[in-house]
Amino acid sequence: MADHTTRTAYTVESLLAVTVDVFNERGYDGTSMEDLSRAAGISKSSIYHHVRGKEELLRLAVGRALDGLFGILGEPAATEGPAVQRLEHVVRRTTEVLLAELPYVTLLLRVRGNTATEQWALERRREFDHRVSELVRAAVADGALRSDVDPRLATRLLFGMINSIVEWYRPGIRTADGVADTVVRLAFDGLRAV
Amino acid sequence: MADHTTRTAYTVESLLAVTVDVFNERGYDGTSMEDLSRAAGISKSSIYHHVRGKEELLRLAVGRALDGLFGILGEPAATEGPAVQRLEHVVRRTTEVLLAELPYVTLLLRVRGNTATEQWALERRREFDHRVSELVRAAVADGALRSDVDPRLATRLLFGMINSIVEWYRPGIRTADGVADTVVRLAFDGLRAV
Repeated sequence: MADHTTRTAYTVESLLAVTVDVFNERGYDGTSMEDLSRAAGISKSSIYHHVRGKEELLRLAVGRALDGLFGILGEPAATEGPAVQRLEHVVRRTTEVLLAELPYVTLLLRVRGNTATEQWALERRREFDHRVSELVRAAVADGALRSDVDPRLATRLLFGMINSIVEWYRPGIRTADGVADTVVRLAFDGLRAV
Repeated sequence: MADHTTRTAYTVESLLAVTVDVFNERGYDGTSMEDLSRAAGISKSSIYHHVRGKEELLRLAVGRALDGLFGILGEPAATEGPAVQRLEHVVRRTTEVLLAELPYVTLLLRVRGNTATEQWALERRREFDHRVSELVRAAVADGALRSDVDPRLATRLLFGMINSIVEWYRPGIRTADGVADTVVRLAFDGLRAV
């Protein structure tokens, strides 16, 4: 009876919200199903009622981050118009998605390992970076971005700047809009006064 | 006899070069003196001949990174002239020191823990960030940097970009100069063609 109650109270989504925090705190490798059961306050068998195991939870969690990021590339402002404007949209929205899905993107950025799911996540991240670096390349070819920076290197530095936000951002101290505005200004126009 | 030979062959510096790689690979917490002894190919007592233990090795390794970084702030180009030029020098040299001392700066950036040495390293990093953010503030006050970005946020994003280099840089693929040039261009003038 009690088990039934907790089962109905817990959805995959609420289980995922607990899981992602535990993964970020202890690392994926360092987390056991026992840890997840304790953190969620439900039995291991209740967790297995929802998912096949730890790796499926990882897949769902990083999948949520990846869906958010790849969703950006399908937005009208990312698919129509000059490459430089599409790139600006993607940079702004990537920052916004990172902030809106902070724990999930944090987990995605920390994935390192050798399971099939981790390999898949790394592959998808590379694909996203590649799509953005193609936009940088197109905008350089249009003459809208400076030609004295290597598109691949510029993309790495750009993501380095954006991804570093997970290291210090705490909701409430700064608005997501303020951060995204600053990222776009710094990336496109730099710090120098004109 | 053999022990004497290895002892004289090993200096603190060569021991440190092995140690920093092991710390970066396994994490400081996950590294035992046994691991260090195995990686260095010398006995634990030989290591204790040089240092008091694991925490002293950490202090020496992150100390080397911190000495490199704080050394920049004392260079003539960082202490004389308009704030914006001093800042540009510091941004370029920080990138260069990161690349020249890659394993040591990587270790410094991964320090998280609760030992006195880790707390000291975090405190010194914050101090360095603070010194740079003061330069950003001064350059904004001079009118040389745009006033519509918050100096503290701009400094965080700037270091996010620079520090991310440890995640992907491998010596030989790109020159340190090429990377430092691109960092300075992106930070001060942005990607947009003018």
